[in-house]
Amino acid sequence: MLRLPRTIEWADGRVRLINQLKLPHSLEYIETSDWRRVAEAIRRMEIRGAPAIGVAAAFAMALAAVHSKARNLEELLSELRACASELRGTRPTAYNLFWAVDQVLATASRAPSLDEAREAVVAKALEIQRMDEEANRRIGEHGEKLIADGDTVMTICNAGSLATSYYGTATAPMYAALERGKRFRVIALETRPYLQGARLTAWELKQAGIDVKIVTDNSIGIVMQRERVDLVIVGADRITRSGYVANKVGTYPLALVAKEHGVPFYVAAPTSTFDLSIEGGEEIPIEVRPSEEVTYIFGQRIAPEGVEALYYAFDVTPPKLVTGIITEKGIVYPPYSKSIPALFGR
Amino acid sequence: MLRLPRTIEWADGRVRLINQLKLPHSLEYIETSDWRRVAEAIRRMEIRGAPAIGVAAAFAMALAAVHSKARNLEELLSELRACASELRGTRPTAYNLFWAVDQVLATASRAPSLDEAREAVVAKALEIQRMDEEANRRIGEHGEKLIADGDTVMTICNAGSLATSYYGTATAPMYAALERGKRFRVIALETRPYLQGARLTAWELKQAGIDVKIVTDNSIGIVMQRERVDLVIVGADRITRSGYVANKVGTYPLALVAKEHGVPFYVAAPTSTFDLSIEGGEEIPIEVRPSEEVTYIFGQRIAPEGVEALYYAFDVTPPKLVTGIITEKGIVYPPYSKSIPALFGR
Repeated sequence: MLRLPRTIEWADGRVRLINQLKLPHSLEYIETSDWRRVAEAIRRMEIRGAPAIGVAAAFAMALAAVHSKARNLEELLSELRACASELRGTRPTAYNLFWAVDQVLATASRAPSLDEAREAVVAKALEIQRMDEEANRRIGEHGEKLIADGDTVMTICNAGSLATSYYGTATAPMYAALERGKRFRVIALETRPYLQGARLTAWELKQAGIDVKIVTDNSIGIVMQRERVDLVIVGADRITRSGYVANKVGTYPLALVAKEHGVPFYVAAPTSTFDLSIEGGEEIPIEVRPSEEVTYIFGQRIAPEGVEALYYAFDVTPPKLVTGIITEKGIVYPPYSKSIPALFGR
Repeated sequence: MLRLPRTIEWADGRVRLINQLKLPHSLEYIETSDWRRVAEAIRRMEIRGAPAIGVAAAFAMALAAVHSKARNLEELLSELRACASELRGTRPTAYNLFWAVDQVLATASRAPSLDEAREAVVAKALEIQRMDEEANRRIGEHGEKLIADGDTVMTICNAGSLATSYYGTATAPMYAALERGKRFRVIALETRPYLQGARLTAWELKQAGIDVKIVTDNSIGIVMQRERVDLVIVGADRITRSGYVANKVGTYPLALVAKEHGVPFYVAAPTSTFDLSIEGGEEIPIEVRPSEEVTYIFGQRIAPEGVEALYYAFDVTPPKLVTGIITEKGIVYPPYSKSIPALFGR
């Protein structure tokens, strides 16, 4: 049985979440009843990963509802809309965040009274969390068939349990394969600048008992040249209706190298990551973050004074490089402009 | 006029070299009359870059010759062979090191007497340094034609003045273009784990007055997706006779992304980097360095205890991804199995 600490939890009108900036050295929690603190945690990347920030945003809305001083439903809805607007402004690329906020808002506005709205919002947030965990469990079941005994799997960033309610997306097939007794090893890209691969993926895979090694992000070529790599599985922050995949910066070069070496490249994501309103890759907003997040490591400057970094946090992998997308409803294959709408019954 | 500090110098039986591990924060020198200290500097990467470690190895041989207690030519030659053997063991990939050591050894064994051998070794080492600078100046003259006013040029690691006697290889066309009054900007990959791009290339380009920005190594895809990139120029540690290029890890994915986006990809290297004894990429020895060089940054561990890194220091770019190779004798183009031997009159 997989035993990993819960990324984010709701209890008695409070939210408790792992401060992921402290990993792998210490497992510390942030506990708050203030929805603004949760928004802050998303912005500061104390919690990150598309599904996890979707859940965090839903819980932030729930905190706002529970602790609201609103005297009637209209006031509550107005507060929730303000809260939603601030949450939408925290990080722009992950679609799950917008999806979760919209789900909670819609639920609140359907409620007949103030008290029922509060209850409905909390229930919806908890449902989003439960659904996420359940979706990931199913992604694991569908995806584990891709991992054979003795395989080497590569991944980037942390699309792990820490990036979701539980199990993770890219890691779900690994955990399911582990539960079925398969032996395999994982090569995790360290993932500059935040080092989520080295810090988080290596940490949770090791906790789970999976053999994991890290490599620098620029090692994708030589590793495929000199080591055997059987499979790449990555997460996603947003997938368009024709199969363009926004994910952590570095995913696109990894997909290109995998293609060149004939290594299957899979994306694992719940259906809440799909943005059917968008067709092409250029339409996906790509977050540009502050230069300092690259030019300083552990508070120490790596570049000369006066030299800035250009820091795009995501990139876009075109559908032609994606072997398949593992969702909770099954694995979809090209042509994505047919298979993705079909996944949503369209 | 370009004014950059000298990477390595010989004066009165001593060698002075910039300690590149201290850049960009301070410009410190290592000064020694002990050839073993120079070998150590190569091993520790206090000096790095294929042409620079070629010169450093030649100077180490010169120190060994000058300070030798040998009583006859045979003793000196025996000492120099031992010195050569230790130098060859410092770093395995850069061809210039082996080339320089062989040149100096051959010179010594041609000398008729002990004193003439000492003199000849020093003269040869100084000639290797002078030839390197001259070759780079010519690489700059040939390569600057590739840079147009307003261009954005990408590079990886530091194939700069610091990696050579002067001018650099990949940077030589940039410095020559600058001297001709062209305005352009450079995007330098930070180049994990040693951050030579962020620390060294950014430092020397800024010193020279060139507009430079750094990006994480995994940004190669998104930068070509969302910014205009006109040209990539990289250095090389070893080039085979059919055009396989060993260079800093990350070069191969960069070449692959450049190809995908139709961006010309040039390699700049003197003829001393070519290893005509090797045909294919698999035959190039690729240095594997200690895990700790990846898992620690500034003495702080980035991965959980018990998780190791796999650290290949170079990768191999196949000739099909290389638009051209800029040498001191001109730019060579595919098919390389014809144009490279022709460069050497074969």
